[in-house]
Amino acid sequence: MTSQPPETALQLRSKVSQDGTLELSLADVEVPQPGADEVLVRVEAAPINPSDLGLLLGMADIQTAKVSGSKERPVVTAKIPPKLLKGMAARFDQSLPVGNEGAGVVVAAGESDAAQALLGKTVAIIGGASYSQYRCIKTPMCLPLPDGTTPREGASCFVNPLTALGMVETMRNEGHTALVHTAAASNLGQMLVKICLKDGIPLVNIVRKPDQQKLLESIGATHVCDSSSESFLDDLTRALVDTGATIAFDATGGGKLAGQILTAMEIAANRNSTEYNRYGSTVHKQVYIYGSLDRSPTQFTRNFGTAWSIGGWLLTPFLQKIGHEGGQRLRQRVASEIKTTFASHYSDEVSLPEALSLEAINVYAAQSTGRKFLINPNS
Amino acid sequence: MTSQPPETALQLRSKVSQDGTLELSLADVEVPQPGADEVLVRVEAAPINPSDLGLLLGMADIQTAKVSGSKERPVVTAKIPPKLLKGMAARFDQSLPVGNEGAGVVVAAGESDAAQALLGKTVAIIGGASYSQYRCIKTPMCLPLPDGTTPREGASCFVNPLTALGMVETMRNEGHTALVHTAAASNLGQMLVKICLKDGIPLVNIVRKPDQQKLLESIGATHVCDSSSESFLDDLTRALVDTGATIAFDATGGGKLAGQILTAMEIAANRNSTEYNRYGSTVHKQVYIYGSLDRSPTQFTRNFGTAWSIGGWLLTPFLQKIGHEGGQRLRQRVASEIKTTFASHYSDEVSLPEALSLEAINVYAAQSTGRKFLINPNS
Repeated sequence: MTSQPPETALQLRSKVSQDGTLELSLADVEVPQPGADEVLVRVEAAPINPSDLGLLLGMADIQTAKVSGSKERPVVTAKIPPKLLKGMAARFDQSLPVGNEGAGVVVAAGESDAAQALLGKTVAIIGGASYSQYRCIKTPMCLPLPDGTTPREGASCFVNPLTALGMVETMRNEGHTALVHTAAASNLGQMLVKICLKDGIPLVNIVRKPDQQKLLESIGATHVCDSSSESFLDDLTRALVDTGATIAFDATGGGKLAGQILTAMEIAANRNSTEYNRYGSTVHKQVYIYGSLDRSPTQFTRNFGTAWSIGGWLLTPFLQKIGHEGGQRLRQRVASEIKTTFASHYSDEVSLPEALSLEAINVYAAQSTGRKFLINPNS
Repeated sequence: MTSQPPETALQLRSKVSQDGTLELSLADVEVPQPGADEVLVRVEAAPINPSDLGLLLGMADIQTAKVSGSKERPVVTAKIPPKLLKGMAARFDQSLPVGNEGAGVVVAAGESDAAQALLGKTVAIIGGASYSQYRCIKTPMCLPLPDGTTPREGASCFVNPLTALGMVETMRNEGHTALVHTAAASNLGQMLVKICLKDGIPLVNIVRKPDQQKLLESIGATHVCDSSSESFLDDLTRALVDTGATIAFDATGGGKLAGQILTAMEIAANRNSTEYNRYGSTVHKQVYIYGSLDRSPTQFTRNFGTAWSIGGWLLTPFLQKIGHEGGQRLRQRVASEIKTTFASHYSDEVSLPEALSLEAINVYAAQSTGRKFLINPNS
């Protein structure tokens, strides 16, 4: 059925040197024999997510990137600003594989029943090193895709879908009934629109451009606020009054947006209140920052009382919190709705060497909405 | 034993007009007969706490304050900046009594056993309108003081002591074992030093001046970091490594301090870690902002991973969370240690008319460490 795997194969590597140089390269690595509960996956699709960029690019200044080596084995080097280098001491001089997730075909399997059951199947995988031609991985890290699903269709089964579902679960677990999302025209944002429509959850989408507003409305979003509009704060406040949203997930992180959301939530909370509360509304207002599209400092004026919180949010600790059973429930939903709710769109599909071209790096490093890269390590 | 209360008495009032004027005045109000479970307290001491200033001064610009009226009945007016006025619509044109807490003697009591038991006693009170010559109040809002305690000694039984104890309880309830406090030379900060010494809790004190450092060390504080020192961040990081503190209570709110604390906590958390975690340390780092000594915007660079939170903290919701029994336990501790752990120091004692002099307002509005006002409404 499946051809014999080669003895060695390509793997994308990222290395940060103590002197402040980032080096990206393709290594020839041995293709291992799977252990008892492992399978060997020929990776055919792996997305470049914002959450991959930290490990991949090591905070390097992309303006300084240079390519050497051959066309088949390019080597990219770039400089890391000294003040950002300090935080990376623990990864100095290690050549690290990259890629949180992907999908491909199981070409070899260990002797366990779980492993054997996956042989020949198309699976999505999570757990790192997905920018590799072959990935040997434990069976619990595989999600078998429904028949007729291609690796490209299943490549983004974990990070974006589980993050979007995690936002909705977090909203429920913390006692809120509606939510706000920023950078809402992203792949993740579109998934969230579909989840919320399906589950009947009021969602306020914040976008940065008028055409993103149209895109979201075309897939059924009802509350879309454009932060580039002069009436943004009024629009947002109205949407918050309408939906009662008191929790937000912010992909931008920097600048004033998180604080503006809290301010608008406070105005919305007070709008129906007649009594003056000197310490502000007693409604708890929460913003979770889960991305850093805007790397500038976060800034806010504390004009939203005392019942508020801004904090970091990350998928992994969320999954730990809901446990194995909770995680399985979410994964099954993703697999069964992978072509609808959780469909991803890619603007570019590249090989491993193409992923290390300056042209590609400049685009995916910029994280602009509408440009999303898929690596096919076996193309 | 106690003289007959008068028919009317003075009460300090604060009014914000829709046109943006703050007016402070002394009203003649009727002295009520206590209901069944109420007592009438002749207030002899009431502190001006930072938490009173919002209601008292209504965000007015103190530079614009003017006094008219007579020496016995001064009337202060000041302008409120238009952008701050909007949030106060719910209090427009209402003449509101002020003063969260105080202490005095029970001069009349309702027929309930609880009320009768308080007659003639010196009690601390909470619940507003303490800047009044007489305050009629429900018995659960009274804390009987140990024999030999004066109203001045018992005037600050609630806000500062319960806030300091609330910080320690919050630390424990949220799974931390040591804490950080800013503006640590304040009355509240000194109480916290004493509580932590007594309870064996490691405490990192952040102060803004070298003489404040000396003051805290003189009462037994071991970790004191001066934020005006060039080595502040290194000093703070070392103290965090030593104590393992991962929760901070910040009285300043504005500027960069909250973020600096999180940054130092992250460096401390990573110092003993050998493995590189691309998303930062997994140790949850918490800053609660409970004051606003620095009214400027809060600003931080997100260089402390994803396991962090900055939020508001307020005594009232904390007390609601721990319930009646928890609250009683804390109050009893305050009463029994009112002359030691919870002793307050006042730089100025004023009458009600004196509290409305420009000289006094300029000092207490500035909230400078070392200047704390006590109003004696019956002096």
